[in-house]
Amino acid sequence: MSETRTTPQDITAAVVASFDDCSDARLREIAQAFARHLHDFARDVGLTQAEWEAAIGILTATGHITDDRRQEFIMWSDSMGLSMLVDALANPLPEGATESTVLGPFYVPGSPERAYGANIAEEPDAGTPALVHGRVLDSDGAPIAGAELDVWQNGANQLYAVQDPEAEEDHLRGRFFTREDGSYAFVAVRPTPYTIPHDGPVGNMLAATGRHPWRPAHIHMIVRAPGHRTLTTHIFDADSDYLESDAVFAVKPSLVRHFEPRAADDPERPDGVEGEWCSVESDFVLVRD
Amino acid sequence: MSETRTTPQDITAAVVASFDDCSDARLREIAQAFARHLHDFARDVGLTQAEWEAAIGILTATGHITDDRRQEFIMWSDSMGLSMLVDALANPLPEGATESTVLGPFYVPGSPERAYGANIAEEPDAGTPALVHGRVLDSDGAPIAGAELDVWQNGANQLYAVQDPEAEEDHLRGRFFTREDGSYAFVAVRPTPYTIPHDGPVGNMLAATGRHPWRPAHIHMIVRAPGHRTLTTHIFDADSDYLESDAVFAVKPSLVRHFEPRAADDPERPDGVEGEWCSVESDFVLVRD
Repeated sequence: MSETRTTPQDITAAVVASFDDCSDARLREIAQAFARHLHDFARDVGLTQAEWEAAIGILTATGHITDDRRQEFIMWSDSMGLSMLVDALANPLPEGATESTVLGPFYVPGSPERAYGANIAEEPDAGTPALVHGRVLDSDGAPIAGAELDVWQNGANQLYAVQDPEAEEDHLRGRFFTREDGSYAFVAVRPTPYTIPHDGPVGNMLAATGRHPWRPAHIHMIVRAPGHRTLTTHIFDADSDYLESDAVFAVKPSLVRHFEPRAADDPERPDGVEGEWCSVESDFVLVRD
Repeated sequence: MSETRTTPQDITAAVVASFDDCSDARLREIAQAFARHLHDFARDVGLTQAEWEAAIGILTATGHITDDRRQEFIMWSDSMGLSMLVDALANPLPEGATESTVLGPFYVPGSPERAYGANIAEEPDAGTPALVHGRVLDSDGAPIAGAELDVWQNGANQLYAVQDPEAEEDHLRGRFFTREDGSYAFVAVRPTPYTIPHDGPVGNMLAATGRHPWRPAHIHMIVRAPGHRTLTTHIFDADSDYLESDAVFAVKPSLVRHFEPRAADDPERPDGVEGEWCSVESDFVLVRD
Protein backbone atom coordinates (compact mmCIF):
# COMPACT_ATOMS: atom_id res chain seq x y z
CA MET A 1 0.00 0.00 0.00
CA SER A 2 1.25 3.46 -0.88
CA GLU A 3 2.16 5.66 2.08
CA THR A 4 1.17 8.84 0.22
CA ARG A 5 -1.35 10.56 2.50
CA THR A 6 -3.93 13.07 1.34
CA THR A 7 -4.01 16.08 3.68
CA PRO A 8 -6.79 18.65 4.16
CA GLN A 9 -4.52 21.11 2.32
CA ASP A 10 -4.27 18.70 -0.64
CA ILE A 11 -8.07 18.61 -0.87
CA THR A 12 -8.38 22.40 -0.87
CA ALA A 13 -5.65 22.73 -3.50
CA ALA A 14 -7.41 20.20 -5.74
CA VAL A 15 -10.73 22.05 -5.49
CA VAL A 16 -9.12 25.40 -6.29
CA ALA A 17 -7.20 23.86 -9.21
CA SER A 18 -10.40 22.31 -10.59
CA PHE A 19 -11.50 25.82 -11.62
CA ASP A 20 -8.21 26.70 -13.37
CA ASP A 21 -9.70 26.05 -16.82
CA CYS A 22 -12.80 28.20 -16.28
CA SER A 23 -12.84 30.51 -19.29
CA ASP A 24 -14.83 33.24 -17.49
CA ALA A 25 -12.14 35.02 -15.46
CA ARG A 26 -14.59 36.63 -13.02
CA LEU A 27 -16.42 33.34 -12.39
CA ARG A 28 -13.05 31.63 -11.86
CA GLU A 29 -12.05 34.28 -9.32
CA ILE A 30 -15.32 33.93 -7.41
CA ALA A 31 -15.34 30.11 -7.47
CA GLN A 32 -11.73 29.82 -6.31
CA ALA A 33 -12.15 32.44 -3.58
CA PHE A 34 -15.36 30.79 -2.42
CA ALA A 35 -13.63 27.39 -2.25
CA ARG A 36 -10.71 28.82 -0.27
CA HIS A 37 -12.90 30.67 2.24
CA LEU A 38 -15.36 27.79 2.63
CA HIS A 39 -12.49 25.40 3.33
CA ASP A 40 -10.72 27.87 5.62
CA PHE A 41 -13.92 28.19 7.63
CA ALA A 42 -14.30 24.41 7.99
CA ARG A 43 -10.62 24.00 8.89
CA ASP A 44 -10.53 26.91 11.36
CA VAL A 45 -13.41 25.55 13.42
CA GLY A 46 -12.63 21.85 12.82
CA LEU A 47 -16.14 21.33 11.47
CA THR A 48 -17.43 17.90 12.49
CA GLN A 49 -19.54 15.47 10.50
CA ALA A 50 -22.47 16.12 12.87
CA GLU A 51 -22.15 19.89 12.44
CA TRP A 52 -21.93 19.46 8.66
CA GLU A 53 -25.11 17.37 8.76
CA ALA A 54 -26.83 20.09 10.83
CA ALA A 55 -25.79 22.70 8.24
CA ILE A 56 -27.19 20.57 5.39
CA GLY A 57 -30.44 20.28 7.37
CA ILE A 58 -30.64 24.05 7.92
CA LEU A 59 -30.03 24.77 4.21
CA THR A 60 -32.65 22.19 3.24
CA ALA A 61 -35.22 23.73 5.61
CA THR A 62 -34.36 27.20 4.30
CA GLY A 63 -34.98 25.99 0.75
CA HIS A 64 -38.31 24.50 1.68
CA ILE A 65 -39.70 27.54 3.55
CA THR A 66 -38.70 29.86 0.68
CA ASP A 67 -41.48 30.64 -1.78
CA ASP A 68 -42.87 33.57 -3.78
CA ARG A 69 -43.87 35.38 -0.59
CA ARG A 70 -40.94 34.52 1.68
CA GLN A 71 -37.25 34.63 0.87
CA GLU A 72 -35.43 32.96 3.77
CA PHE A 73 -32.09 32.93 1.91
CA ILE A 74 -32.19 36.75 1.74
CA MET A 75 -33.06 36.75 5.44
CA TRP A 76 -29.90 34.71 6.09
CA SER A 77 -27.92 37.24 4.07
CA ASP A 78 -29.52 40.11 6.01
CA SER A 79 -29.11 38.49 9.43
CA MET A 80 -25.44 37.64 8.74
CA GLY A 81 -24.77 41.21 7.62
CA LEU A 82 -23.91 40.11 4.07
CA SER A 83 -26.58 42.30 2.46
CA MET A 84 -25.20 45.40 4.18
CA LEU A 85 -21.64 44.43 3.30
CA VAL A 86 -22.45 43.96 -0.40
CA ASP A 87 -24.18 47.36 -0.35
CA ALA A 88 -21.13 48.95 1.29
CA LEU A 89 -18.76 47.36 -1.23
CA ALA A 90 -20.91 48.53 -4.15
CA ASN A 91 -21.45 52.07 -2.90
CA PRO A 92 -18.26 53.63 -1.54
CA LEU A 93 -19.25 57.25 -1.10
CA PRO A 94 -17.34 60.51 -0.94
CA GLU A 95 -17.40 62.47 2.32
CA GLY A 96 -20.68 64.30 2.78
CA ALA A 97 -22.81 62.07 0.57
CA THR A 98 -25.74 60.46 2.36
CA GLU A 99 -25.03 56.83 3.22
CA SER A 100 -27.08 53.95 1.81
CA THR A 101 -28.64 51.06 3.67
CA VAL A 102 -30.71 47.95 2.88
CA LEU A 103 -33.75 48.03 0.60
CA GLY A 104 -35.53 45.39 2.69
CA PRO A 105 -38.28 43.02 1.54
CA PHE A 106 -41.24 45.42 1.84
CA TYR A 107 -40.57 47.78 -1.06
CA VAL A 108 -43.29 47.68 -3.72
CA PRO A 109 -42.80 49.81 -6.86
CA GLY A 110 -45.63 52.03 -8.11
CA SER A 111 -46.42 54.21 -5.10
CA PRO A 112 -48.83 57.08 -5.80
CA GLU A 113 -47.36 60.50 -6.56
CA ARG A 114 -48.39 62.92 -3.81
CA ALA A 115 -48.21 66.70 -3.43
CA TYR A 116 -45.65 68.59 -1.34
CA GLY A 117 -46.66 68.24 2.32
CA ALA A 118 -49.27 65.50 1.75
CA ASN A 119 -50.07 62.79 4.27
CA ILE A 120 -49.14 59.16 3.41
CA ALA A 121 -51.38 57.64 6.11
CA GLU A 122 -54.61 56.37 4.50
CA GLU A 123 -55.85 54.41 7.52
CA PRO A 124 -56.93 55.73 10.96
CA ASP A 125 -54.77 55.20 14.04
CA ALA A 126 -51.63 54.67 11.96
CA GLY A 127 -49.48 56.33 14.62
CA THR A 128 -48.29 59.73 15.86
CA PRO A 129 -48.19 62.14 12.88
CA ALA A 130 -44.64 63.08 11.87
CA LEU A 131 -43.74 65.92 9.54
CA VAL A 132 -40.70 64.78 7.54
CA HIS A 133 -38.91 67.56 5.69
CA GLY A 134 -35.56 68.69 4.34
CA ARG A 135 -33.74 69.17 1.07
CA VAL A 136 -32.11 67.06 -1.61
CA LEU A 137 -28.68 68.43 -2.48
CA ASP A 138 -25.77 67.58 -4.72
CA SER A 139 -22.35 67.02 -3.24
CA ASP A 140 -21.46 70.70 -3.75
CA GLY A 141 -24.41 71.67 -1.55
CA ALA A 142 -26.55 72.91 -4.46
CA PRO A 143 -30.26 72.07 -4.29
CA ILE A 144 -31.63 69.48 -6.74
CA ALA A 145 -35.07 70.45 -8.05
CA GLY A 146 -37.44 67.68 -9.18
CA ALA A 147 -35.68 64.89 -7.27
CA GLU A 148 -38.01 62.01 -6.42
CA LEU A 149 -38.40 60.59 -2.88
CA ASP A 150 -40.04 57.16 -2.95
CA VAL A 151 -41.11 56.63 0.67
CA TRP A 152 -42.53 53.67 2.62
CA GLN A 153 -42.79 52.76 6.29
CA ASN A 154 -44.66 50.65 8.83
CA GLY A 155 -47.33 51.93 11.16
CA ALA A 156 -48.12 51.61 14.86
CA ASN A 157 -49.32 48.03 14.29
CA GLN A 158 -45.73 47.17 13.14
CA LEU A 159 -46.97 46.21 9.65
CA TYR A 160 -46.22 47.55 6.20
CA ALA A 161 -49.29 47.87 3.96
CA VAL A 162 -48.01 44.95 1.84
CA GLN A 163 -48.13 42.76 4.97
CA ASP A 164 -51.47 44.01 6.26
CA PRO A 165 -54.60 42.58 4.62
CA GLU A 166 -56.70 45.26 6.38
CA ALA A 167 -54.78 48.22 4.94
CA GLU A 168 -55.21 50.09 1.67
CA GLU A 169 -52.48 49.25 -0.83
CA ASP A 170 -51.08 52.80 -0.75
CA HIS A 171 -51.20 53.24 3.03
CA LEU A 172 -47.97 54.71 4.39
CA ARG A 173 -46.25 55.06 1.04
CA GLY A 174 -45.93 57.69 -1.67
CA ARG A 175 -43.67 59.48 -4.11
CA PHE A 176 -42.75 63.16 -3.62
CA PHE A 177 -40.80 65.59 -5.79
CA THR A 178 -38.54 68.37 -4.56
CA ARG A 179 -39.37 72.04 -5.24
CA GLU A 180 -37.04 74.52 -6.99
CA ASP A 181 -35.07 75.05 -3.77
CA GLY A 182 -34.58 71.25 -3.35
CA SER A 183 -37.06 71.09 -0.50
CA TYR A 184 -39.46 68.26 0.19
CA ALA A 185 -42.05 67.63 2.92
CA PHE A 186 -44.61 64.99 3.76
CA VAL A 187 -46.64 63.86 6.73
CA ALA A 188 -45.86 60.32 7.87
CA VAL A 189 -46.20 58.62 11.24
CA ARG A 190 -43.53 58.05 13.80
CA PRO A 191 -42.23 54.55 12.91
CA THR A 192 -42.11 51.70 15.42
CA PRO A 193 -39.70 48.79 15.84
CA TYR A 194 -40.77 45.46 14.34
CA THR A 195 -39.44 41.94 14.02
CA ILE A 196 -38.18 40.21 10.90
CA PRO A 197 -40.07 36.93 10.29
CA HIS A 198 -38.59 34.59 12.89
CA ASP A 199 -40.63 31.38 12.69
CA GLY A 200 -38.11 29.68 10.38
CA PRO A 201 -34.41 28.71 10.22
CA VAL A 202 -33.19 32.31 10.65
CA GLY A 203 -35.39 32.75 13.71
CA ASN A 204 -34.02 29.50 15.10
CA MET A 205 -30.46 30.81 14.62
CA LEU A 206 -31.30 34.11 16.34
CA ALA A 207 -32.83 32.29 19.32
CA ALA A 208 -30.00 29.76 19.59
CA THR A 209 -27.29 32.43 19.52
CA GLY A 210 -28.92 34.86 21.96
CA ARG A 211 -29.83 37.43 19.30
CA HIS A 212 -33.26 39.05 18.82
CA PRO A 213 -35.29 39.60 15.62
CA TRP A 214 -36.05 43.31 16.12
CA ARG A 215 -35.31 46.20 13.79
CA PRO A 216 -35.18 49.76 15.21
CA ALA A 217 -37.85 52.26 14.05
CA HIS A 218 -37.16 53.74 10.61
CA ILE A 219 -38.68 55.26 7.47
CA HIS A 220 -37.48 53.93 4.10
CA MET A 221 -36.76 56.03 1.06
CA ILE A 222 -35.25 55.76 -2.38
CA VAL A 223 -34.05 59.16 -3.66
CA ARG A 224 -33.71 59.48 -7.43
CA ALA A 225 -32.51 62.42 -9.53
CA PRO A 226 -31.35 62.53 -13.16
CA GLY A 227 -27.55 62.52 -13.46
CA HIS A 228 -27.11 61.26 -9.88
CA ARG A 229 -26.62 57.86 -8.30
CA THR A 230 -29.89 56.52 -6.86
CA LEU A 231 -29.79 56.38 -3.05
CA THR A 232 -31.59 53.67 -1.05
CA THR A 233 -31.59 54.62 2.62
CA HIS A 234 -33.52 54.99 5.91
CA ILE A 235 -34.20 57.69 8.47
CA PHE A 236 -33.76 56.04 11.88
CA ASP A 237 -35.49 57.39 14.99
CA ALA A 238 -32.84 58.40 17.54
CA ASP A 239 -35.16 57.44 20.42
CA SER A 240 -35.87 53.93 19.16
CA ASP A 241 -34.88 50.72 20.90
CA TYR A 242 -32.54 48.36 19.02
CA LEU A 243 -30.41 51.04 17.33
CA GLU A 244 -27.36 49.21 18.67
CA SER A 245 -28.58 45.74 17.72
CA ASP A 246 -30.56 45.93 14.46
CA ALA A 247 -31.21 42.30 13.43
CA VAL A 248 -30.03 43.12 9.89
CA PHE A 249 -27.15 45.51 10.81
CA ALA A 250 -28.62 48.35 8.71
CA VAL A 251 -28.07 51.22 11.18
CA LYS A 252 -25.41 53.75 10.23
CA PRO A 253 -24.87 56.57 12.77
CA SER A 254 -25.13 59.23 10.06
CA LEU A 255 -28.72 58.11 9.28
CA VAL A 256 -30.09 58.59 12.82
CA ARG A 257 -32.35 61.63 13.25
CA HIS A 258 -34.11 63.27 16.19
CA PHE A 259 -37.93 63.24 16.00
CA GLU A 260 -38.94 66.48 17.75
CA PRO A 261 -42.17 66.24 19.80
CA ARG A 262 -44.64 69.05 18.95
CA ALA A 263 -47.70 70.21 20.87
CA ALA A 264 -51.21 70.15 19.41
CA ASP A 265 -51.26 73.97 19.37
CA ASP A 266 -47.85 74.33 17.71
CA PRO A 267 -48.32 76.99 14.99
CA GLU A 268 -46.35 74.87 12.48
CA ARG A 269 -48.87 72.02 12.78
CA PRO A 270 -49.57 70.66 9.26
CA ASP A 271 -53.08 70.92 7.84
CA GLY A 272 -55.29 67.99 8.78
CA VAL A 273 -53.14 66.88 11.72
CA GLU A 274 -54.85 66.77 15.12
CA GLY A 275 -53.38 66.33 18.58
CA GLU A 276 -49.72 65.82 19.38
CA TRP A 277 -47.35 65.37 16.49
CA CYS A 278 -43.62 65.45 15.82
CA SER A 279 -41.21 66.58 13.14
CA VAL A 280 -37.94 65.36 11.74
CA GLU A 281 -35.56 67.07 9.34
CA SER A 282 -33.27 65.19 7.02
CA ASP A 283 -31.29 66.36 4.00
CA PHE A 284 -30.15 63.88 1.36
CA VAL A 285 -26.90 64.48 -0.50
CA LEU A 286 -26.60 62.63 -3.82
CA VAL A 287 -23.45 61.79 -5.77
CA ARG A 288 -23.19 62.58 -9.50
CA ASP A 289 -23.17 59.54 -11.77
CA MET B 1 -25.30 65.61 9.06
CA SER B 2 -22.77 63.50 10.90
CA GLU B 3 -19.60 62.72 8.99
CA THR B 4 -19.18 59.36 10.74
CA ARG B 5 -18.93 56.82 7.93
CA THR B 6 -19.72 53.14 8.31
CA THR B 7 -17.02 51.03 6.63
CA PRO B 8 -17.23 47.41 5.43
CA GLN B 9 -14.96 46.55 8.39
CA ASP B 10 -17.46 48.17 10.78
CA ILE B 11 -20.22 45.96 9.39
CA THR B 12 -18.18 42.78 9.82
CA ALA B 13 -17.21 43.76 13.36
CA ALA B 14 -20.86 44.38 14.27
CA VAL B 15 -21.94 40.98 12.93
CA VAL B 16 -19.17 39.16 14.81
CA ALA B 17 -19.99 41.09 18.01
CA SER B 18 -23.69 40.23 17.68
CA PHE B 19 -22.79 36.64 18.67
CA ASP B 20 -20.74 37.64 21.73
CA ASP B 21 -23.58 36.76 24.11
CA CYS B 22 -24.23 33.31 22.65
CA SER B 23 -24.14 31.00 25.67
CA ASP B 24 -23.15 27.93 23.63
CA ALA B 25 -19.40 28.41 23.20
CA ARG B 26 -19.09 26.04 20.24
CA LEU B 27 -22.03 27.65 18.42
CA ARG B 28 -20.52 31.07 19.09
CA GLU B 29 -17.19 29.94 17.63
CA ILE B 30 -18.86 28.57 14.50
CA ALA B 31 -21.16 31.57 13.98
CA GLN B 32 -18.37 34.11 14.39
CA ALA B 33 -15.95 32.19 12.16
CA PHE B 34 -18.67 31.77 9.53
CA ALA B 35 -19.43 35.50 9.60
CA ARG B 36 -15.73 36.38 9.25
CA HIS B 37 -15.09 33.99 6.37
CA LEU B 38 -18.33 34.88 4.56
CA HIS B 39 -17.49 38.58 4.78
CA ASP B 40 -13.83 38.01 3.83
CA PHE B 41 -15.01 36.15 0.73
CA ALA B 42 -17.36 38.97 -0.31
CA ARG B 43 -14.69 41.60 0.38
CA ASP B 44 -11.87 39.71 -1.37
CA VAL B 45 -13.81 39.38 -4.62
CA GLY B 46 -15.71 42.69 -4.31
CA LEU B 47 -19.00 40.81 -4.63
CA THR B 48 -21.49 42.93 -6.60
CA GLN B 49 -25.23 43.30 -6.05
CA ALA B 50 -25.87 41.40 -9.31
CA GLU B 51 -23.60 38.54 -8.23
CA TRP B 52 -25.28 38.47 -4.81
CA GLU B 53 -28.67 38.24 -6.55
CA ALA B 54 -27.37 35.38 -8.72
CA ALA B 55 -26.19 33.55 -5.59
CA ILE B 56 -29.60 33.98 -3.94
CA GLY B 57 -31.18 32.57 -7.11
CA ILE B 58 -28.86 29.55 -7.12
CA LEU B 59 -29.56 28.81 -3.45
CA THR B 60 -33.31 29.15 -4.04
CA ALA B 61 -33.16 26.75 -7.03
CA THR B 62 -31.06 24.34 -4.97
CA GLY B 63 -33.68 24.40 -2.23
CA HIS B 64 -36.48 23.72 -4.65
CA ILE B 65 -34.83 20.77 -6.48
CA THR B 66 -33.96 19.11 -3.16
CA ASP B 67 -36.45 16.47 -2.00
CA ASP B 68 -36.50 13.04 -0.35
CA ARG B 69 -34.77 11.48 -3.35
CA ARG B 70 -32.34 14.22 -4.31
CA GLN B 71 -30.05 16.23 -2.03
CA GLU B 72 -28.59 19.05 -4.11
CA PHE B 73 -27.08 20.78 -1.05
CA ILE B 74 -24.96 17.66 -0.38
CA MET B 75 -24.01 17.70 -4.06
CA TRP B 76 -22.78 21.29 -3.61
CA SER B 77 -20.76 20.16 -0.60
CA ASP B 78 -19.35 17.23 -2.60
CA SER B 79 -18.59 19.26 -5.72
CA MET B 80 -16.87 22.00 -3.70
CA GLY B 81 -14.76 19.41 -1.88
CA LEU B 82 -16.29 20.26 1.50
CA SER B 83 -17.52 16.71 2.14
CA MET B 84 -13.99 15.33 1.63
CA LEU B 85 -12.50 18.08 3.77
CA VAL B 86 -14.88 17.42 6.67
CA ASP B 87 -14.03 13.71 6.40
CA ALA B 88 -10.30 14.49 6.44
CA LEU B 89 -10.66 16.79 9.47
CA ALA B 90 -12.67 14.15 11.36
CA ASN B 91 -10.42 11.23 10.51
CA PRO B 92 -6.73 12.06 10.84
CA LEU B 93 -5.08 8.67 10.56
CA PRO B 94 -1.74 7.24 11.66
CA GLU B 95 0.72 6.15 8.98
CA GLY B 96 -0.23 2.82 7.49
CA ALA B 97 -3.96 2.98 8.25
CA THR B 98 -6.18 2.80 5.17
CA GLU B 99 -7.50 6.21 4.18
CA SER B 100 -11.20 7.06 4.18
CA THR B 101 -13.23 8.71 1.45
CA VAL B 102 -16.83 9.82 0.83
CA LEU B 103 -19.82 7.61 1.61
CA GLY B 104 -21.75 8.95 -1.39
CA PRO B 105 -25.52 9.04 -1.85
CA PHE B 106 -26.00 5.42 -3.02
CA TYR B 107 -25.35 3.50 0.21
CA VAL B 108 -28.38 1.58 1.44
CA PRO B 109 -28.07 -0.29 4.76
CA GLY B 110 -29.23 -3.93 5.03
CA SER B 111 -27.21 -5.63 2.30
CA PRO B 112 -27.44 -9.46 2.32
CA GLU B 113 -24.71 -11.40 4.12
CA ARG B 114 -22.84 -13.50 1.56
CA ALA B 115 -20.31 -16.35 1.83
CA TYR B 116 -16.56 -16.02 1.31
CA GLY B 117 -15.95 -15.76 -2.44
CA ALA B 118 -19.61 -15.26 -3.42
CA ASN B 119 -20.72 -13.20 -6.41
CA ILE B 120 -22.60 -9.91 -5.76
CA ALA B 121 -23.92 -9.62 -9.35
CA GLU B 122 -27.55 -10.77 -9.44
CA GLU B 123 -28.33 -9.51 -12.96
CA PRO B 124 -26.87 -10.67 -16.30
CA ASP B 125 -24.39 -8.50 -18.25
CA ALA B 126 -23.43 -6.53 -15.15
CA GLY B 127 -19.84 -6.17 -16.39
CA THR B 128 -16.48 -7.99 -16.50
CA PRO B 129 -16.23 -10.27 -13.43
CA ALA B 130 -13.66 -9.07 -10.92
CA LEU B 131 -12.31 -11.14 -8.03
CA VAL B 132 -11.74 -8.72 -5.14
CA HIS B 133 -9.63 -10.13 -2.32
CA GLY B 134 -7.22 -9.24 0.45
CA ARG B 135 -7.05 -9.03 4.22
CA VAL B 136 -8.30 -6.81 7.02
CA LEU B 137 -5.46 -5.99 9.43
CA ASP B 138 -4.92 -3.92 12.54
CA SER B 139 -2.28 -1.21 12.56
CA ASP B 140 0.32 -3.69 13.94
CA GLY B 141 -0.24 -5.84 10.86
CA ALA B 142 -2.17 -8.55 12.75
CA PRO B 143 -5.15 -10.06 10.91
CA ILE B 144 -8.64 -9.20 12.16
CA ALA B 145 -10.98 -12.20 12.02
CA GLY B 146 -14.72 -11.59 11.66
CA ALA B 147 -14.39 -8.04 10.27
CA GLU B 148 -17.34 -7.03 8.11
CA LEU B 149 -16.97 -5.61 4.59
CA ASP B 150 -20.18 -3.88 3.46
CA VAL B 151 -19.73 -3.56 -0.31
CA TRP B 152 -21.65 -1.73 -3.08
CA GLN B 153 -20.87 -0.64 -6.61
CA ASN B 154 -22.34 0.30 -9.96
CA GLY B 155 -22.40 -1.95 -13.01
CA ALA B 156 -21.62 -1.59 -16.70
CA ASN B 157 -24.82 0.45 -17.20
CA GLN B 158 -23.34 3.08 -14.79
CA LEU B 159 -26.21 2.57 -12.30
CA TYR B 160 -26.34 1.44 -8.70
CA ALA B 161 -29.19 -0.96 -7.94
CA VAL B 162 -30.92 1.78 -5.93
CA GLN B 163 -31.02 3.92 -9.10
CA ASP B 164 -32.03 1.13 -11.47
CA PRO B 165 -35.71 0.16 -11.50
CA GLU B 166 -34.85 -2.95 -13.58
CA ALA B 167 -32.34 -4.36 -11.07
CA GLU B 168 -32.87 -6.59 -8.04
CA GLU B 169 -32.54 -4.68 -4.78
CA ASP B 170 -29.44 -6.64 -3.76
CA HIS B 171 -27.70 -6.50 -7.13
CA LEU B 172 -24.01 -5.55 -6.79
CA ARG B 173 -24.02 -5.29 -3.02
CA GLY B 174 -23.39 -7.58 -0.07
CA ARG B 175 -21.77 -8.04 3.33
CA PHE B 176 -18.75 -10.34 3.78
CA PHE B 177 -16.87 -11.42 6.90
CA THR B 178 -13.14 -12.10 7.14
CA ARG B 179 -11.81 -15.58 7.93
CA GLU B 180 -9.45 -16.46 10.83
CA ASP B 181 -6.45 -15.19 8.84
CA GLY B 182 -8.21 -11.85 8.13
CA SER B 183 -8.82 -12.75 4.51
CA TYR B 184 -11.87 -11.85 2.47
CA ALA B 185 -12.89 -12.48 -1.15
CA PHE B 186 -15.87 -11.77 -3.35
CA VAL B 187 -16.71 -11.65 -7.03
CA ALA B 188 -17.80 -8.21 -8.23
CA VAL B 189 -17.65 -6.55 -11.64
CA ARG B 190 -15.08 -4.13 -12.90
CA PRO B 191 -16.63 -0.73 -12.06
CA THR B 192 -17.20 1.97 -14.68
CA PRO B 193 -17.09 5.76 -14.45
CA TYR B 194 -20.44 7.53 -14.02
CA THR B 195 -21.75 11.07 -13.67
CA ILE B 196 -23.21 12.71 -10.60
CA PRO B 197 -26.72 14.11 -11.30
CA HIS B 198 -25.98 17.22 -13.36
CA ASP B 199 -29.38 18.54 -14.51
CA GLY B 200 -29.63 21.03 -11.63
CA PRO B 201 -27.72 23.96 -10.09
CA VAL B 202 -24.57 21.91 -9.42
CA GLY B 203 -24.54 20.70 -13.03
CA ASN B 204 -24.95 24.30 -14.18
CA MET B 205 -21.93 25.30 -12.07
CA LEU B 206 -19.82 22.44 -13.47
CA ALA B 207 -20.71 23.41 -17.05
CA ALA B 208 -20.16 27.14 -16.47
CA THR B 209 -16.74 26.62 -14.89
CA GLY B 210 -15.41 24.09 -17.40
CA ARG B 211 -15.62 21.12 -15.01
CA HIS B 212 -17.23 17.74 -15.79
CA PRO B 213 -19.64 15.63 -13.72
CA TRP B 214 -17.74 12.31 -13.93
CA ARG B 215 -16.48 10.13 -11.14
CA PRO B 216 -13.69 7.59 -11.83
CA ALA B 217 -14.50 3.86 -11.56
CA HIS B 218 -14.59 2.57 -7.98
CA ILE B 219 -16.04 -0.01 -5.59
CA HIS B 220 -17.41 1.25 -2.25
CA MET B 221 -16.94 -0.43 1.08
CA ILE B 222 -17.48 0.15 4.77
CA VAL B 223 -15.18 -2.02 6.91
CA ARG B 224 -16.32 -2.64 10.48
CA ALA B 225 -14.63 -4.56 13.28
CA PRO B 226 -15.26 -4.49 17.05
CA GLY B 227 -12.77 -2.29 18.90
CA HIS B 228 -11.75 -0.49 15.70
CA ARG B 229 -12.77 2.71 14.02
CA THR B 230 -15.20 2.06 11.14
CA LEU B 231 -13.64 2.79 7.73
CA THR B 232 -15.66 4.17 4.80
CA THR B 233 -13.58 3.98 1.65
CA HIS B 234 -13.31 3.05 -2.07
CA ILE B 235 -11.10 0.88 -4.25
CA PHE B 236 -10.36 2.97 -7.37
CA ASP B 237 -9.46 1.33 -10.68
CA ALA B 238 -5.95 2.49 -11.71
CA ASP B 239 -6.92 2.29 -15.42
CA SER B 240 -10.04 4.49 -15.06
CA ASP B 241 -10.53 7.85 -16.67
CA TYR B 242 -11.11 10.84 -14.36
CA LEU B 243 -8.75 9.73 -11.56
CA GLU B 244 -7.17 13.19 -11.73
CA SER B 245 -10.48 15.06 -11.91
CA ASP B 246 -13.09 13.25 -9.77
CA ALA B 247 -16.13 15.59 -9.64
CA VAL B 248 -16.30 15.09 -5.85
CA PHE B 249 -12.53 15.07 -5.12
CA ALA B 250 -12.72 11.62 -3.45
CA VAL B 251 -9.61 10.05 -5.02
CA LYS B 252 -6.67 9.48 -2.70
CA PRO B 253 -3.59 7.95 -4.35
CA SER B 254 -3.30 5.28 -1.65
CA LEU B 255 -6.74 3.92 -2.61
CA VAL B 256 -5.94 3.26 -6.30
CA ARG B 257 -5.48 -0.44 -7.22
CA HIS B 258 -4.51 -2.33 -10.34
CA PHE B 259 -7.23 -4.59 -11.78
CA GLU B 260 -5.26 -7.51 -13.31
CA PRO B 261 -6.79 -8.92 -16.53
CA ARG B 262 -7.16 -12.73 -16.40
CA ALA B 263 -7.77 -15.16 -19.23
CA ALA B 264 -10.83 -17.41 -19.40
CA ASP B 265 -8.60 -20.47 -18.83
CA ASP B 266 -6.71 -18.99 -15.86
CA PRO B 267 -6.60 -21.77 -13.24
CA GLU B 268 -7.55 -19.32 -10.47
CA ARG B 269 -10.87 -18.50 -12.22
CA PRO B 270 -13.63 -18.37 -9.54
CA ASP B 271 -16.48 -20.87 -9.70
CA GLY B 272 -19.35 -19.71 -11.87
CA VAL B 273 -17.29 -17.13 -13.77
CA GLU B 274 -17.13 -17.55 -17.55
CA GLY B 275 -14.92 -15.83 -20.13
CA GLU B 276 -12.39 -13.14 -19.37
CA TRP B 277 -12.23 -11.80 -15.87
CA CYS B 278 -9.89 -9.75 -13.69
CA SER B 279 -8.69 -9.62 -10.11
CA VAL B 280 -7.73 -6.89 -7.66
CA GLU B 281 -6.10 -7.22 -4.26
CA SER B 282 -6.61 -4.71 -1.47
CA ASP B 283 -5.81 -4.92 2.22
CA PHE B 284 -7.60 -2.68 4.71
CA VAL B 285 -5.79 -1.50 7.84
CA LEU B 286 -8.05 -0.36 10.67
CA VAL B 287 -7.20 1.87 13.63
CA ARG B 288 -8.11 0.84 17.20
CA ASP B 289 -10.83 2.93 18.79
